[in-house]
Amino acid sequence: MTPSDRALPLQHFASDNYAGMCPNAARWFMEAQTSGHEPAYGEDRWTQQVSEGLRELFQTDCDVYFVFNGTAANSLALASLCQSYHSVICSPVAHIETDECGGPEFFSNGSKLLVGESESASARLGKLTPDAVESLVTKRHDIHYPKPKVVSLTQATELGTVYSVEEVRAIAAIAKRRHLKVHMDGARFANAVATLGCHPSDITWRAGVDVLCFGGTKNGLPVGEAVVFFDRALSEDFAWRVKQAGQLASKMRFISAPWLGLLENDTWLANARHANAMAARLHAALRDVPGVELLHAPQANAVFARLPQPAVNALHAKGWRFYQFIAGGGCRFMCSWDTRPESVDAFAADIRQACGA
Amino acid sequence: MTPSDRALPLQHFASDNYAGMCPNAARWFMEAQTSGHEPAYGEDRWTQQVSEGLRELFQTDCDVYFVFNGTAANSLALASLCQSYHSVICSPVAHIETDECGGPEFFSNGSKLLVGESESASARLGKLTPDAVESLVTKRHDIHYPKPKVVSLTQATELGTVYSVEEVRAIAAIAKRRHLKVHMDGARFANAVATLGCHPSDITWRAGVDVLCFGGTKNGLPVGEAVVFFDRALSEDFAWRVKQAGQLASKMRFISAPWLGLLENDTWLANARHANAMAARLHAALRDVPGVELLHAPQANAVFARLPQPAVNALHAKGWRFYQFIAGGGCRFMCSWDTRPESVDAFAADIRQACGA
Amino acid sequence: MTPSDRALPLQHFASDNYAGMCPNAARWFMEAQTSGHEPAYGEDRWTQQVSEGLRELFQTDCDVYFVFNGTAANSLALASLCQSYHSVICSPVAHIETDECGGPEFFSNGSKLLVGESESASARLGKLTPDAVESLVTKRHDIHYPKPKVVSLTQATELGTVYSVEEVRAIAAIAKRRHLKVHMDGARFANAVATLGCHPSDITWRAGVDVLCFGGTKNGLPVGEAVVFFDRALSEDFAWRVKQAGQLASKMRFISAPWLGLLENDTWLANARHANAMAARLHAALRDVPGVELLHAPQANAVFARLPQPAVNALHAKGWRFYQFIAGGGCRFMCSWDTRPESVDAFAADIRQACGA
Amino acid sequence: MTPSDRALPLQHFASDNYAGMCPNAARWFMEAQTSGHEPAYGEDRWTQQVSEGLRELFQTDCDVYFVFNGTAANSLALASLCQSYHSVICSPVAHIETDECGGPEFFSNGSKLLVGESESASARLGKLTPDAVESLVTKRHDIHYPKPKVVSLTQATELGTVYSVEEVRAIAAIAKRRHLKVHMDGARFANAVATLGCHPSDITWRAGVDVLCFGGTKNGLPVGEAVVFFDRALSEDFAWRVKQAGQLASKMRFISAPWLGLLENDTWLANARHANAMAARLHAALRDVPGVELLHAPQANAVFARLPQPAVNALHAKGWRFYQFIAGGGCRFMCSWDTRPESVDAFAADIRQACGA
Repeated sequence: MTPSDRALPLQHFASDNYAGMCPNAARWFMEAQTSGHEPAYGEDRWTQQVSEGLRELFQTDCDVYFVFNGTAANSLALASLCQSYHSVICSPVAHIETDECGGPEFFSNGSKLLVGESESASARLGKLTPDAVESLVTKRHDIHYPKPKVVSLTQATELGTVYSVEEVRAIAAIAKRRHLKVHMDGARFANAVATLGCHPSDITWRAGVDVLCFGGTKNGLPVGEAVVFFDRALSEDFAWRVKQAGQLASKMRFISAPWLGLLENDTWLANARHANAMAARLHAALRDVPGVELLHAPQANAVFARLPQPAVNALHAKGWRFYQFIAGGGCRFMCSWDTRPESVDAFAADIRQACGA
Repeated sequence: MTPSDRALPLQHFASDNYAGMCPNAARWFMEAQTSGHEPAYGEDRWTQQVSEGLRELFQTDCDVYFVFNGTAANSLALASLCQSYHSVICSPVAHIETDECGGPEFFSNGSKLLVGESESASARLGKLTPDAVESLVTKRHDIHYPKPKVVSLTQATELGTVYSVEEVRAIAAIAKRRHLKVHMDGARFANAVATLGCHPSDITWRAGVDVLCFGGTKNGLPVGEAVVFFDRALSEDFAWRVKQAGQLASKMRFISAPWLGLLENDTWLANARHANAMAARLHAALRDVPGVELLHAPQANAVFARLPQPAVNALHAKGWRFYQFIAGGGCRFMCSWDTRPESVDAFAADIRQACGA
Repeated sequence: MTPSDRALPLQHFASDNYAGMCPNAARWFMEAQTSGHEPAYGEDRWTQQVSEGLRELFQTDCDVYFVFNGTAANSLALASLCQSYHSVICSPVAHIETDECGGPEFFSNGSKLLVGESESASARLGKLTPDAVESLVTKRHDIHYPKPKVVSLTQATELGTVYSVEEVRAIAAIAKRRHLKVHMDGARFANAVATLGCHPSDITWRAGVDVLCFGGTKNGLPVGEAVVFFDRALSEDFAWRVKQAGQLASKMRFISAPWLGLLENDTWLANARHANAMAARLHAALRDVPGVELLHAPQANAVFARLPQPAVNALHAKGWRFYQFIAGGGCRFMCSWDTRPESVDAFAADIRQACGA
Repeated sequence: MTPSDRALPLQHFASDNYAGMCPNAARWFMEAQTSGHEPAYGEDRWTQQVSEGLRELFQTDCDVYFVFNGTAANSLALASLCQSYHSVICSPVAHIETDECGGPEFFSNGSKLLVGESESASARLGKLTPDAVESLVTKRHDIHYPKPKVVSLTQATELGTVYSVEEVRAIAAIAKRRHLKVHMDGARFANAVATLGCHPSDITWRAGVDVLCFGGTKNGLPVGEAVVFFDRALSEDFAWRVKQAGQLASKMRFISAPWLGLLENDTWLANARHANAMAARLHAALRDVPGVELLHAPQANAVFARLPQPAVNALHAKGWRFYQFIAGGGCRFMCSWDTRPESVDAFAADIRQACGA
């Protein structure tokens, strides 16, 4: 195989990490190449520039670090907030609990994740509640159980829902009262901001969040996430932690420069808005399809629905990729910054046809 | 700042990770973009293709994993070879000992590094010897000291020298006899192969190496290293280890595809040969400069020399970047795949002038 | 306060670790003193003798190690069976999950505990079932979730019940088929053997158990547990692990010699039988007390019952100590090797009175 | 074998942990038995009493924890002072470096030990110097090397010497200036105090020590060490750390009560003085033995000497146990709280005879 042009390729709804990088990110990636030699390990001009850009974006003098992926971002952030004998409160569907292969436990050398209840209306939407946090933090006080030290929110959640500003504030208030730090897994932070229409600071430090893992990959980068410490006291020696953990890029510019493409003209927000709109379009297209049971309404870039298994099989046979992980035919359809309306429409049509069959 | 063309920029001799990516790597990076959507986590076509390519390169059915950087590659490879109460034998100047911020100890949960003696002729060239290994492995047998389990060689070494095929074989023979596994830190593996003119298999599995960390970044990639297990029994469940350790790229294609650029037409070897040649050119140019004390002859892409401190200062003042880390004015001048002869000549001229001043 | 004789002191039902050491253990503890100087770290005569004694007890050539407490025994045993990216299947009430402060996660550097379902009849008795194991081990196969590697059974369970020989065998059979190792937390192993009336080998290696943590403390020792590897391949370098983990006693004889007291004349079994009998006596005495809801029948040395909260308060006010940890007034009454029938009767009488009030 | 009286048994000079427990410790161990039932995990009366006793001994409101052995005491104390990417400065002969099988690295999840120079007069006496600390702490400031965070002193040292009050103060002063915490490995703390004739506070908190691991085992306990935090801010949540690390005794009274025996009538000091006196006696007896090269004068309870290898062999053949670990016949003869003058004299006579042969 050699490089060549190709026709518009098929798109999938499996994950927003199936998409490539957005044009702006690609342009700045190549731009980082132009200087030839550049100091390594973040001493380059782009890294400094993006860090400054993120401080401006959040309107505060936060500490910014770039790491390679979300597991590392979350795990290192959590490890900086707790010791091995502490615990982290999260929802039962939290990515840190279900899809990071014990990364948080590994990087913290053993911190336990305590999952909130799973039966309430909020839990069914993938959210923690103040009550769930309060319940977990007050359940045990003895030294035979890890002491809660952090509450972790995923924003947007793994179920494609979004915490309102008030919801974040309410949880953070409990956290402060109980001496917990607040971590936000923002793998799809941009999608949440796009939905809420708020300022990025409103659901982070102004609401009580101490550390944000700001997802770049799913927003259009080739590789990389930012760890943003709003409470700078918590990032003491974090640079050493990143280095030791194998997360310090030597040619850092190729990790950081593409962020300039996201920040330029609020591309990050445009990318997220587009992905959210595509999810809404898909949701609308499926609303009246017999056999499709839409679960909750999408608030970010994912649609959750139950389909008859034969329909699932038929769609897979046609080449569509998507995940099933909810019992009884529940499927996740994920849209990304590059999902084309035509892809949505074609997929919806095939679903309709498959369910009719 | 916006993307734009620039004149030929200044080059440095600080590190081969100051260089950008080589054209072939860049081309394949962009090529990985063309398909639009692609399965994540290594299920894409490029990752499969590169893995196959590396198996062909090494002429054996090895297990290949891609991680983000050298600290991670070395640390995860070592962690797969030893438990926390084991130890790793290496040279006193080994990168794993001196420049990874305790990464190997962290990922292995405490394995100790045992450094060989530092006074012999070999040690002054940055090399371990069979005697040094034998001495360390037989020094203690009691349970109050970590049990040696791995010997780690850096090829090319941190001092720009290269182990001959026979030297690797001799150390590996001791290792096998003493039930140690053999790890090779090949951050500059290509430079060693270029120097030796041997087949890559000759200084790896055919010589007794169990695991190679094959450096991509310093060879011309934007980001990424390959961990190559020649003894496949050692890579059991390594995919889980990589995931947990935050080293599994979701958009893996952007990490793996550029390797196709290195493999294409033996670009990896051409890049290394060029860097080595530039070091030889610099060494030759400095041979008769009064005040410059060249240390050992370069065998890879680095020149080591002692300069008068005023000369060092003058060169830094002119904008040249390079590291000093040997007592008494010792400097390291590192060449890379893109170092231009003109840069070498200009640098040598400035050194000559600085030393004359 | 100076040492002196005292009248028969009050006994409690809080835990079997409220009891002191049994006379036989005390006698051998002091006997270990008689030789004056003795080689350290287990090279003494008693340690060798007890190890041999345990091999005889289990009728197999097992590997035996002595550690200080149950958290260490379980955690080190589990760490020897799995890597950080593996997982351990256990019941939701398993001590390793609920009362070791994340010890297993710490010593294994991150292994996750996967708890079985909690709603079945077996689960309400604190037991894992083959189905629960099968369900957890087949739930996920992807690298984003820790790979199951061990199943851990507590025998007797934390709810005072006992797995039958057939139950252990059935779980071990699933484990073997799924390539899981079998760990038995035997903090109250003696109590289980006493109940089943089987040979100790019948519910351990003959039933498929790979490693047993044989509890000494609750059986009458002042301090110490034994880790017994029936599969000796799994104990490779375990002595180094114990040393590194701070679990190697220098004056080992004081840890090991008291075990001779337990082995002598099957004192371990007599101690357990007595404790079990006291629990049965208490259970019988409470059977017809109005207001007391006995939960399941005791199979080992604990009685579980729900009492009205005022009754609980009244008992506490009288100086009785016991734990409440089941919602709705559930209490645990634990008997030990030294619980006197008079104490049981007095406690039962006070419960009757408190419930009548 | 059954318990019985024996004649005065042979004594050894291998280690002070070859000795049993001193009578006062044994008495209180048995006294802890008298109450029958007693709350577990340190809620018992003896643990509270000893903690108070240690606070009185040190004349300050320190935090006291009891753990099982010295590796655990040192490792947990160090882990509470540094993170995985930090480092600990110690002497090249420090027990934490040479004889704890990587325990400090394990419990801290990777902290590196940086050893001071080994050639100076102080180093030959097993001591760190302010210059050595300063040199290590200023050597590197980059994030590629673990950041120094703690200096660890062994008092008395592993070579049987003792830091003067001024020496401790001088090192602590450097430490404070460089933002390092000061840890004291006091496995033989009592022997140092006995030699210096100072108050225990003078070489600990009054001199700038933050945490002391106060050795009980070598001073006459059957098992156990105390971790004493003079800076109470450093012991935050340390109880959880101890529990998770498998160092919390359930029947704590048997670990803590014997300390009452050490504190009673300053038995700890009497024991140490006796051991020191026996070392002095042995040193004096060997002073004029031809063939014996005494190394430095003993300041605590160890004598170091070089003997001809045939003499060493002859002594071993006679049944004497001692360690050789210094090249060229260097031997360590260690005295303990129970070493009899007759044993010293007999050993010295046999050395004289062996060297004469």
